[in-house]
Amino acid sequence: MGSTGVRIAIDAMGGDHAPGEIVAGALRAREELGVSVLLVGDPQEIERRLPPKTNLEQVEIVTASSAIAMDEEPLSAIRRKPKASINVAMDLVKQNRADAVVSAGHSGAAMAAALLRLGRLPGIDRPAIGAVFPTIKAGKPVLILDVGANVDCRPKFLEQFAVMGSAYSKYVLGISEPKVGLLNIGEEDCKGNDVTVRVHQMLRENTQISFIGNAEGRDVLSGEFDVIVCDGFVGNVLLKFAEAVGSVILQILKEELPQGLHGQIGTALLKPNLKRIKQRMDHAEHGGALLLGVAGICIISHGSSQAPSIFNAIRMAKEAVDNQVQEQIQRQYQSQL
Amino acid sequence: MGSTGVRIAIDAMGGDHAPGEIVAGALRAREELGVSVLLVGDPQEIERRLPPKTNLEQVEIVTASSAIAMDEEPLSAIRRKPKASINVAMDLVKQNRADAVVSAGHSGAAMAAALLRLGRLPGIDRPAIGAVFPTIKAGKPVLILDVGANVDCRPKFLEQFAVMGSAYSKYVLGISEPKVGLLNIGEEDCKGNDVTVRVHQMLRENTQISFIGNAEGRDVLSGEFDVIVCDGFVGNVLLKFAEAVGSVILQILKEELPQGLHGQIGTALLKPNLKRIKQRMDHAEHGGALLLGVAGICIISHGSSQAPSIFNAIRMAKEAVDNQVQEQIQRQYQSQL
Repeated sequence: MGSTGVRIAIDAMGGDHAPGEIVAGALRAREELGVSVLLVGDPQEIERRLPPKTNLEQVEIVTASSAIAMDEEPLSAIRRKPKASINVAMDLVKQNRADAVVSAGHSGAAMAAALLRLGRLPGIDRPAIGAVFPTIKAGKPVLILDVGANVDCRPKFLEQFAVMGSAYSKYVLGISEPKVGLLNIGEEDCKGNDVTVRVHQMLRENTQISFIGNAEGRDVLSGEFDVIVCDGFVGNVLLKFAEAVGSVILQILKEELPQGLHGQIGTALLKPNLKRIKQRMDHAEHGGALLLGVAGICIISHGSSQAPSIFNAIRMAKEAVDNQVQEQIQRQYQSQL
Repeated sequence: MGSTGVRIAIDAMGGDHAPGEIVAGALRAREELGVSVLLVGDPQEIERRLPPKTNLEQVEIVTASSAIAMDEEPLSAIRRKPKASINVAMDLVKQNRADAVVSAGHSGAAMAAALLRLGRLPGIDRPAIGAVFPTIKAGKPVLILDVGANVDCRPKFLEQFAVMGSAYSKYVLGISEPKVGLLNIGEEDCKGNDVTVRVHQMLRENTQISFIGNAEGRDVLSGEFDVIVCDGFVGNVLLKFAEAVGSVILQILKEELPQGLHGQIGTALLKPNLKRIKQRMDHAEHGGALLLGVAGICIISHGSSQAPSIFNAIRMAKEAVDNQVQEQIQRQYQSQL
């Protein structure tokens, strides 16, 4: 195992296509990104998925005796199964044997395992799940957080999301002065529910971030914002709606485009262009969501992830490690104290 | 004015394209739907927009001396300007000179005017704004409410939204047993924030509706639900996001489809099919949102509405009148008492 490279612990048993697709994505990441991968799970199951001539340099199999099923209550399952793959993966980070965790398993369980095994960063009350959305401006994504960790939020939680999101945008996504918005129902300062009206004021006064005002639903994909904060209820609804909308549109195109003879010829001619459109809208290209505010880098992939999504999630994890996002967030809070 | 036909009061001064497009949409509705229209606003401004040979049968101009601007605080503006067009339009319903109101003006002001001039239906604590979304199943739309009237909701408000939405779906949209869902972040009964966990239980026990469980963001456009209830904060974010997504996708298609020579030919061949896709996704086809729970039928159109949207909004208003949606909602509450 290369001691200088980034080491990623991968929950090989998590997700609808585990362990086959998870292992395949991990091996590709090792190959193309030069990371070391620690595959956590049932050694026999994992070994069966390794191609016969796999070069075992930079691949380590770490035994876990169980896994968390998608229908288990996360907190109790995490406590009841200390040797579940997601717990073992988190422990590897805790023991400094890995720099980050990637999991496509139960996202609530990943959150619970991270909290119990790694704990929170100093100054952070509630970790958040951030998701990167493509916008109408190519190459200019927006980071939305929280998309599901905290359904009932106090104003200061949202303020912390803004600070963490801003640090991630700056140090990992490379935006020099990230424009932060508050998801809300109107542009005016006074608009919103009880929580957002108060948060708006707090963000206005926060000198650590560049707050440019409220973002309405229509502004999410405009490319005008680099970071948008919201509670985990509305963020989760929006994330799942956005994911589904892509498929809905692709299905409508599939139904309507090839109708008639002109339609059939036209659609055939457009095949490469349609493929590019699918890629631009496909969330698999974006890898996963990130857990911000826990004392370790964790990327949570979609349960339906196949090898390309896992590869992209590992790339995200590597970029977060390379850019020291944890240290940067912590610095924000030390400077505040 | 035909005394047997449906009479619609139209806020001719409300919206970005008032009064020209509003008047044009109203005249078309009178022509094609056989409704009487009462155009409320500045008589000179309205008359200038009437084509020279307009048949003034079934068209009445009702004078209003002012209008509410989009940046005014709704409640105080409604109180300060009793002769504003939206107030005068509501008064026409109150005086039984009209059966419904259509406005593309300030939606908060329309809500405030309806509440102050018409009042609430008995048994309803908070009126809600409902919006009809197209789904992946052609011809099977879903009614979402509330999309903006109530940003902080108590559980019983959401229960009332479910009953009102169900009545609208049944008596206006013609669904014999509307499937009601609660917008939430997971399918399981226990998922959600403080409010939705309680509402879930209340909807389960409500015998007036057919509650089929939680609807996640990804289920909104699935066609599996006829009515989805949520608070006005998340509903408004979702509505505006959904509207914007349509435009974003159309823009991506416009950019990507015609690339290369094959792309140009293919796109030219597909012109009629692309037009049909645009129509299927275009919210102008859906007319407007409806105010449920006030003692009168009110349709709120988008501020950017042009004549086709206004026409569709008037059609929605006529269908609500024809199907006695108010009486049906009231009956639900009388049966409950």
